Amino acid sequence: MTFRNKTAIAGIGETEFSKNSGRSTLHMACEAILAALADAGLQPNDIDGIIKMSANDDIQEIDLLRSLGLSNLRVFHDVPHGGGAACGTVTGAARAIAAGAADVIVCFRSLNERSERRFGYSKVGGGVGGYMAYNIPMGFVTPAQWVAMFGQRYLHDFGWTTEEFGHLAILIRKHASTNPHAMMYNREIDMEDYLNARWITEPLRLFDCTLDTDGACAVVVVSAEKAKQLKSQPAYIAGAAQGTGSRTQMMTSYQRPSISTLEEATATANEVYRIAELDPSRIDQANLYDHFTPMVLMTLESYGFAPRGKAPDLVRSGRLGLDGDLPLNPHGGHLGDGYLHGFSHILEGVRQIRGTANNQVKRSVKTTLATSGTGVPTSAIILSSEAY
Amino acid sequence: MTFRNKTAIAGIGETEFSKNSGRSTLHMACEAILAALADAGLQPNDIDGIIKMSANDDIQEIDLLRSLGLSNLRVFHDVPHGGGAACGTVTGAARAIAAGAADVIVCFRSLNERSERRFGYSKVGGGVGGYMAYNIPMGFVTPAQWVAMFGQRYLHDFGWTTEEFGHLAILIRKHASTNPHAMMYNREIDMEDYLNARWITEPLRLFDCTLDTDGACAVVVVSAEKAKQLKSQPAYIAGAAQGTGSRTQMMTSYQRPSISTLEEATATANEVYRIAELDPSRIDQANLYDHFTPMVLMTLESYGFAPRGKAPDLVRSGRLGLDGDLPLNPHGGHLGDGYLHGFSHILEGVRQIRGTANNQVKRSVKTTLATSGTGVPTSAIILSSEAY
Repeated sequence: MTFRNKTAIAGIGETEFSKNSGRSTLHMACEAILAALADAGLQPNDIDGIIKMSANDDIQEIDLLRSLGLSNLRVFHDVPHGGGAACGTVTGAARAIAAGAADVIVCFRSLNERSERRFGYSKVGGGVGGYMAYNIPMGFVTPAQWVAMFGQRYLHDFGWTTEEFGHLAILIRKHASTNPHAMMYNREIDMEDYLNARWITEPLRLFDCTLDTDGACAVVVVSAEKAKQLKSQPAYIAGAAQGTGSRTQMMTSYQRPSISTLEEATATANEVYRIAELDPSRIDQANLYDHFTPMVLMTLESYGFAPRGKAPDLVRSGRLGLDGDLPLNPHGGHLGDGYLHGFSHILEGVRQIRGTANNQVKRSVKTTLATSGTGVPTSAIILSSEAY
Repeated sequence: MTFRNKTAIAGIGETEFSKNSGRSTLHMACEAILAALADAGLQPNDIDGIIKMSANDDIQEIDLLRSLGLSNLRVFHDVPHGGGAACGTVTGAARAIAAGAADVIVCFRSLNERSERRFGYSKVGGGVGGYMAYNIPMGFVTPAQWVAMFGQRYLHDFGWTTEEFGHLAILIRKHASTNPHAMMYNREIDMEDYLNARWITEPLRLFDCTLDTDGACAVVVVSAEKAKQLKSQPAYIAGAAQGTGSRTQMMTSYQRPSISTLEEATATANEVYRIAELDPSRIDQANLYDHFTPMVLMTLESYGFAPRGKAPDLVRSGRLGLDGDLPLNPHGGHLGDGYLHGFSHILEGVRQIRGTANNQVKRSVKTTLATSGTGVPTSAIILSSEAY
């Protein structure tokens, strides 16, 4: 027996996404959480659990106790490994609520990733422990550099060119272009733009790489029973999982039989489908973590939407468009909406289930998949319109 | 419905405790984990979840993947707030296993807290954010200083003298003196020793303060069903809880109606008794977090063993001795066995349930309580010999 459909996302909230929020991450976290509570029809003091991502933000749940005026938390923990943690927070909430440990758990992410600390502006030097000690002193310091190795190997192993990355970037930017919330609203690109853009680190061009964003997102998780009594339509948590594979490092797991496939994502896919008791053919809409385009191709393969090495065919097929049978990142993802470290992908899944997205997909959406960071220990959730 | 008695601690392991381990925390973590697995009759690759404490140690679960040769983790997260997290790791494991998310979760703590980084050797300066910005620049920098304020207020509010702290220190050191594993084995103290010892920070003398220790502890958590099939006698997890109260800070929560009582501990006590469906009269043996003696007095009160301000009467009564009806820290706790940040208290509870402790208590032990760090967001577990 698992926790399939025992819990639901009952509320979502987010701030605007921008290059300069002009306020603290704590302030934005409170805004997003209050919006998510209002969406659910709950009050701040209903919160009795907070689960957050641990990397690159110093908001503690005890700061939120004071800022929001809460009386006690019965569940609190942090999920490590950067963007891989996004769905992992909701996963932890679903487990805890299913176990009867809390009633209302908030998960959130708040970043001034553009105006305060751009992850891509890493530098050589400083104290570096563990396996990073082999990379940082060599100037091998940014996520784009680390991921470039996976991308190059993917092209090499399967005989593709960077145009395949381009098709994906163009598709996701197209979706962003009609989403007023997106940082890249009204800013579609074509293959000429893509190929003419500067290299960030070969084989990644500008448009292969995530935006840098200030903003915050939050969700409220409650039991399925409680969700039915609340204000907004529940998005039941059909499946929720974490996975590492066997030899994972922070985007530098090169000591593997292959780096043209994502071991962490495959392990997580198996588990999230096991819990949801679904297979890939039952997913109506996918919000896949898109910090760098090559990783999205590999994610499509790990989650069973395309055979290994064949994801570019799926991208070219048109099936990932808003009128296709597996619409991908209708909100515009990290490449077009903004980079909230995987959290906005969770919110988009809820909106698509409710039918309230800015780019609502054409066919009926009963199930959505959200995935989190790739090349790191990761996580995923499947949301459902019904508690089947 | 909660997760009461749905899971169990099936294995425990620890290293020696010393002033200088001579090896890395990663090395000791592996030793303790392998010992706990052997105790349960499990293999490393049976592990599919790792939950750890996040503060003051940089071992990542992905380091353990490699070091122990694991193939995948389905559950992993960190519990924040120093020693408050110890039982919180087991709590997270119990919830996750009860929810069907993993089969075998390891929780551990490994510290070279004496030879590498003594928590009491804090210093003024460096980057300090949040509420600590009000304390650190003033030279108010060590846990002993922070806790001294609580201790002084306790004496003031209830009219006791520091001799009451002494009675507690003497009792716990007495227990350590007959435990060969303890750093203070064969080193009993009396009131003269206590009163003649130097002030660390008034009203705390040397023997009121935890030892500094190198060492590691680990436990293996599985479902109650699985535990029955394993090698060692299960210690069922009857209750497991976290709590914060409303205005908690890292040992500096002075902006409260009262600091002669522990709001976090009281909230956690209520929850752990709720889940276990027990009251304090049903606890046979207690392992209470004893980094500083005044906090143990307040913990006894928060968990309902003494009325507010009356814990010193309980200590003087003899009921907390090995032949009493609530034997306290038979292993010698942080003050005598060693400072593993609350983890050794969990192991002692398991041993007392099994009847295998070095200082096994006289009466039959059906239930044990372990509590974690005080003055911070905290946690507690109740273990039971039977899945009632």
